[in-house]
Amino acid sequence: MARTTFEEISAADFFYRNRDIAGFTNPTRAIFAAVRELVENSLDAAESLKVPPDIYVRLSYANETDKETNVFRLMIKDNGIGVPPRHIPSAFGQVLYGSKYKPKQQRGTFGLGGKMAILYGQITTHQPARIISSTGMSKIYSYKLRIDIQRNRPLILDRKVLINKERWRGTIVEFSLEGDYSRAMPKILEYFKQTAMVNPYANLTFVDPKGRLYKFARATEEMPDPPKETLPHPYGVDVELLQRLIHVTTFRNMSDFLKNHFHRIGEITARKFLEFSNISPSKNPKRLSHEEVVRLMRMLKEFREFLPPNASCLSPLGEKLLKTGISKELEPEFIAVHQRRPSTYAGHPFIVEMAIAYGGEIPRKGSFLIYRFANRIPLLYDEASDVSTIVMNSMNWRRYKVTPDMPIAIATHICSTKIPYKTVGKEFIADRPEVRREIANGLREVARRLQRFLTRREHVSRDRKRLDIFSKYLPKIAEFSTQLAGKEKNPDIKKLLRSVKRFGT
Amino acid sequence: MARTTFEEISAADFFYRNRDIAGFTNPTRAIFAAVRELVENSLDAAESLKVPPDIYVRLSYANETDKETNVFRLMIKDNGIGVPPRHIPSAFGQVLYGSKYKPKQQRGTFGLGGKMAILYGQITTHQPARIISSTGMSKIYSYKLRIDIQRNRPLILDRKVLINKERWRGTIVEFSLEGDYSRAMPKILEYFKQTAMVNPYANLTFVDPKGRLYKFARATEEMPDPPKETLPHPYGVDVELLQRLIHVTTFRNMSDFLKNHFHRIGEITARKFLEFSNISPSKNPKRLSHEEVVRLMRMLKEFREFLPPNASCLSPLGEKLLKTGISKELEPEFIAVHQRRPSTYAGHPFIVEMAIAYGGEIPRKGSFLIYRFANRIPLLYDEASDVSTIVMNSMNWRRYKVTPDMPIAIATHICSTKIPYKTVGKEFIADRPEVRREIANGLREVARRLQRFLTRREHVSRDRKRLDIFSKYLPKIAEFSTQLAGKEKNPDIKKLLRSVKRFGT
Repeated sequence: MARTTFEEISAADFFYRNRDIAGFTNPTRAIFAAVRELVENSLDAAESLKVPPDIYVRLSYANETDKETNVFRLMIKDNGIGVPPRHIPSAFGQVLYGSKYKPKQQRGTFGLGGKMAILYGQITTHQPARIISSTGMSKIYSYKLRIDIQRNRPLILDRKVLINKERWRGTIVEFSLEGDYSRAMPKILEYFKQTAMVNPYANLTFVDPKGRLYKFARATEEMPDPPKETLPHPYGVDVELLQRLIHVTTFRNMSDFLKNHFHRIGEITARKFLEFSNISPSKNPKRLSHEEVVRLMRMLKEFREFLPPNASCLSPLGEKLLKTGISKELEPEFIAVHQRRPSTYAGHPFIVEMAIAYGGEIPRKGSFLIYRFANRIPLLYDEASDVSTIVMNSMNWRRYKVTPDMPIAIATHICSTKIPYKTVGKEFIADRPEVRREIANGLREVARRLQRFLTRREHVSRDRKRLDIFSKYLPKIAEFSTQLAGKEKNPDIKKLLRSVKRFGT
Repeated sequence: MARTTFEEISAADFFYRNRDIAGFTNPTRAIFAAVRELVENSLDAAESLKVPPDIYVRLSYANETDKETNVFRLMIKDNGIGVPPRHIPSAFGQVLYGSKYKPKQQRGTFGLGGKMAILYGQITTHQPARIISSTGMSKIYSYKLRIDIQRNRPLILDRKVLINKERWRGTIVEFSLEGDYSRAMPKILEYFKQTAMVNPYANLTFVDPKGRLYKFARATEEMPDPPKETLPHPYGVDVELLQRLIHVTTFRNMSDFLKNHFHRIGEITARKFLEFSNISPSKNPKRLSHEEVVRLMRMLKEFREFLPPNASCLSPLGEKLLKTGISKELEPEFIAVHQRRPSTYAGHPFIVEMAIAYGGEIPRKGSFLIYRFANRIPLLYDEASDVSTIVMNSMNWRRYKVTPDMPIAIATHICSTKIPYKTVGKEFIADRPEVRREIANGLREVARRLQRFLTRREHVSRDRKRLDIFSKYLPKIAEFSTQLAGKEKNPDIKKLLRSVKRFGT
């Protein structure tokens, strides 16, 4: 008789079996994914201290024979906040354990990436990972560990404690993995290049297996304010969240409960809301019945007078940085940047920043050069599925006198406490209506400015042609006229030419 | 001083926080996702017994007030294999617990969908789910449960045991959820329609909130052989998998180990492989050192004489079923179907089946009507990102005399032990080179046949025109010739017309 067998698998096992979902599809993608996940963790770690990041990445052949087998040693060193010793094993050896599970703008989103990289290295080489870290205190901790995938637990193979004479602070991660570097190289280099574009305060150094050094030196020490953790917004709540807040709250009345656990609910808003929903301000939240909790959620979504999410917790690039980053990279003839006002989706605040650039080093290739960034990281895959591309393709470009053969680059940056990635591998952003709308409006704004530039350029080009003609023929006409008039001396046409020049430019 | 806080979250919590990833993005998508996940589980459950599925789905307003709040009651009843009572709580109330974690062609892939549906219902309505099931024995078990999301454990609120007088076998799942049915309705109906197309042996009944009944009656009792569980193929192994096999194996020598744990390794192949990799056939697998395990993995990937995966474990639709399903739906003038030979990606076997149809009820809409199926389920979202669409868009259609304004429909079906979904929400299939190649070749084959039809059609159309002209003028010419020749009687042209007709059609 047929029987169905049931089994339980751990989260590590789930992502091991479905590592495609996390971006570790094949040796080429995997080596890219490993580098990007670790770099992003390091950037987050330094920024949380508002320290300009110094990140060093080295990819080398572990030994001679490995050159044929495509086995690499990946090492990354940063000057970030460091990991306290008691957290190191789980932070690197246990899936769904980490620091990314709070409502805050961070590059790391799912708390998976670093672990997936180590897991992938382990299943392709069977080598353990080495983690060395210090929070800047008197000791440095060094662990050699593996992930017990079936139990989702770290296996500590070795642990050393070293004296931290120089009070070094940071983290070093090192492990072996199988990868196809030659195929991945263009994407890895592009990743560093674009990361440097939008994080100009970071020093990035990359040494590849051939020993070539790529240095992306910081262009400024000036750092933006780090993103701040925020409280959930009423529009984004569900029953589970309410239950958890009720469970942990130390406040004993609804008024204080609302004011302290939600984003931007002050005394007046709390009072109005409680009136609107017919809930007593002195009611103890822990005494709400199930039905009342459901009703509370519904009321929170229906009440129209909550203030929209304040984006002060976000850390956008800013128009100046975006302009500098792109100009440095592409040296365009023209660039327009625009930062949209904050918006929200599902209770999460987000800000869209756009840039459009023309000419200079931008190639004419029949379609626009597209840059996509989210929380200051570049997205390099699945361009066609990304919401930005969808918006760009549905724009009526002819209206702005723009044709696909023009040398144009477009950059989009979205920052949010929760980037609506479509996949755990953070390849592209889902087509959310609120996000789409913001990108579309931002794009129209910069497209308008490009149109003005193009129109002006057309005029300038026309006038320059006229000037050329004047410059060519005016002297001859002057000569001719002089002779005709029987004069000796040609009139001084320099003044005339100068005024034409002035007019033309 | 800044400090990073670490926390551990459960798998249920992870998917709760990232339910977009699983397809539960908003109330419209969520209600669709809930229906599809449960229907797919029910189809798998009946097919595992090779029993023609009877599936009944009802979506209703839980009560009068809910009409404004968009809260629905979703109930699904099937005649599948049923769930043994000891597994019911975890099978429905614990994420990453289930029956989908084996190498077998199934609709359910991640073992998440049903749980996510229940979880979504819980967080939007706070109502528990009711599960009633029996494996056809003497008892029926009825559970009322919730998911403890933070612990990823089921909370059993109620448990009843009923006498199973009629030896009913199957499962009933019922819960409440918030959803936008009016928006989701077209997709839900399309889902049922397309599911019926490729599962013509299933009875599907759907009752919507307005009480309208949609019945998709089975067209045949004939069912394909159920898919079989298979062994891993050597090309798809990694160190983790080898370690697990070595850990559980009862075989004490490498030869038996290979023959019994891997797909299609027999006595001869095992011997050749062990010679090739210089491993003694009598070596005990449990005595392999770490380095030897890594080397074994490498050798397994390098050895060229392993037989390709046998697709006998797969259950494709078959050309007849595909043709019937599409013809019934679209009533085309022409249809061509083609089943590719089995192929593999990353050690997983897969089969691509294509169909192209022309005319009949297919609308002319400026682009082709595209149907995508995977393991007999329709994919209705993210068409643009799917590998099938990518292939279709890069085909040189003009070569086949096909233009986008023609009334053409294209259907792709892929069956595999592991469909390379890009997302946990099973929205679309990733662009894997092996899969892309198969789809491209399949599409060319059916496109060629369409081209022959179109060419023939053109000839027929041309000849019909000629025939019309003949029919019109021949009698007059006959009259005229008769008069010219001074004859009395017109020649009998019927025979002539008949022969022209024969020639023209």
